[in-house]
Amino acid sequence: MRLLAFRDADTDRALGVSADGITFHAVTALAPDLPNQIEIVLGSNGALDRLAALLAAAGPGRPLSQITLLPFLGRANAFWALALNFKTHIAETGLTTSLDYPHLFLRTAASYVGSGEPIVAPPEQVARAFDYEGELGVVIGKPGRHIPVERALEHVAGYTIVNEGSVREYQMHNRQFGLGKNFEASGSYGPWMVTRDAFGDPTRHSIETRLNGIVRQRSGLDDLLVGVAQTVAYLSKGYRLRPGDMIAMGTPGALPPAENDTEGRDLSRQYGPFPTPGLVHMRPDDRVEIEVSGLGVLSNPLIADEPASYRIG
Amino acid sequence: MRLLAFRDADTDRALGVSADGITFHAVTALAPDLPNQIEIVLGSNGALDRLAALLAAAGPGRPLSQITLLPFLGRANAFWALALNFKTHIAETGLTTSLDYPHLFLRTAASYVGSGEPIVAPPEQVARAFDYEGELGVVIGKPGRHIPVERALEHVAGYTIVNEGSVREYQMHNRQFGLGKNFEASGSYGPWMVTRDAFGDPTRHSIETRLNGIVRQRSGLDDLLVGVAQTVAYLSKGYRLRPGDMIAMGTPGALPPAENDTEGRDLSRQYGPFPTPGLVHMRPDDRVEIEVSGLGVLSNPLIADEPASYRIG
Repeated sequence: MRLLAFRDADTDRALGVSADGITFHAVTALAPDLPNQIEIVLGSNGALDRLAALLAAAGPGRPLSQITLLPFLGRANAFWALALNFKTHIAETGLTTSLDYPHLFLRTAASYVGSGEPIVAPPEQVARAFDYEGELGVVIGKPGRHIPVERALEHVAGYTIVNEGSVREYQMHNRQFGLGKNFEASGSYGPWMVTRDAFGDPTRHSIETRLNGIVRQRSGLDDLLVGVAQTVAYLSKGYRLRPGDMIAMGTPGALPPAENDTEGRDLSRQYGPFPTPGLVHMRPDDRVEIEVSGLGVLSNPLIADEPASYRIG
Repeated sequence: MRLLAFRDADTDRALGVSADGITFHAVTALAPDLPNQIEIVLGSNGALDRLAALLAAAGPGRPLSQITLLPFLGRANAFWALALNFKTHIAETGLTTSLDYPHLFLRTAASYVGSGEPIVAPPEQVARAFDYEGELGVVIGKPGRHIPVERALEHVAGYTIVNEGSVREYQMHNRQFGLGKNFEASGSYGPWMVTRDAFGDPTRHSIETRLNGIVRQRSGLDDLLVGVAQTVAYLSKGYRLRPGDMIAMGTPGALPPAENDTEGRDLSRQYGPFPTPGLVHMRPDDRVEIEVSGLGVLSNPLIADEPASYRIG
């Protein structure tokens, strides 16, 4: 089952569920007693199973094409992300990372948009090395502390797709990534959460990132340095994992460019710290798509940010 | 004027204002049209000035001793913090930082409690190097992008005190601080926000951290590598600063221990990566106080976290 948030003519924000990714039902229509707050739905014991049963018994739904999808989490307590968690990405950057612990940092809610919404590219005078990062997103359901690795997946409600858009110049301004991972509307996640039982074992899936239709990243999800269960267990040593916390699991390296891929082979057009064949920065009017088998496609157009001039509000 | 959030017998959460730090009025009593959401009050043009005028004309208030202070921001979009921003702290760690850009990372709402609430020390088998970091907190009022340095302070609604409690072992697990700066209830801020006009120029103030009554940090706020205005301007290049965003400005180094300060001189009791004379870790049953001239005292007792055993919920 897919769990999503949407806006339509009648509501600014509501939750929906979909079995087929083509039609959906509003959660309040299936289960009027459930609140329209995803953190509460994710944290309520049995709520997702109940919704799946109601959905299976429901009549035809409304077409998803009639609504606007929103970032389904709203303002979660924590949007975690892992740096340098694919061996191919570690190799291409030449950076080091611990082999024992996940390499974790945080993003703000304001740094993400939903599927279909525009990702905002910084003005050129601010930054030019604006990169996609296709990632698997893990959504916490059951809260917990000191979760053993072997019980960790029980605390995962489901999975989504993340574009962990990164502004390389700012990311390298200092030793912590800071603002470089938190530009306004620089990333996205969605289009929905697929429940854990429907997705199955993450390591059996694969991820692919396309920029303007050209595949730029492709990897199995079995190449992670630190896996989903280990990361969940690690975080729970420090704080109470909360329903709706999200963890983006890191991005694979660039796919080597094809023979005729002029853009992908032209390192002179790269402004980042690690020029890499096959890497192409995101720019206004591009379209970036990230596909994870079993989850669907996260697709966003790119637009130019407003000029870098002072404005209040 | 002081702006605060409180809980009492009648309400789970409301806003208050205080002129003297001894008595207060509820915001809804002075201005019933203002919502009980601090981000809206901070972002409403003229709302703080209007509250100050209403407060000056109001009768005697209720004693602050009758209420429980809460973290006044709730769930802000961003809790930023600066690493290595005092020359004395840079010297004691031996770490490097950029001289051109602030060294920024994020904390979650769950990592902070309010003044008077207990800060939670990790179980010893999880971590022992749990350190206070007394800091000046900057609270954004007027939203904006690409804010020039010379206009930056106009976007500051006021200032508060932050204890940026840090778990050193976890902070050093990898190159990003990650979980080490985000343990559950490991830090605090408050007791309130003092408006910008009442606080004046931050560089003319000073900060002092006391653990169990012994002064452990003391510094002027003119020792910052990157100042308040520069940091506000920098962040606004990347995203729209929002009312209620907070920036903790970094912590000074340890004060050298007195001749008779056995604990402060005993490096064998330190578990962190940078043993430093005068540094003493926080432990259960301690009390940590941070005082900033013009802001007051942020005071928290320390309690032990529950044992490191698996629990759901």
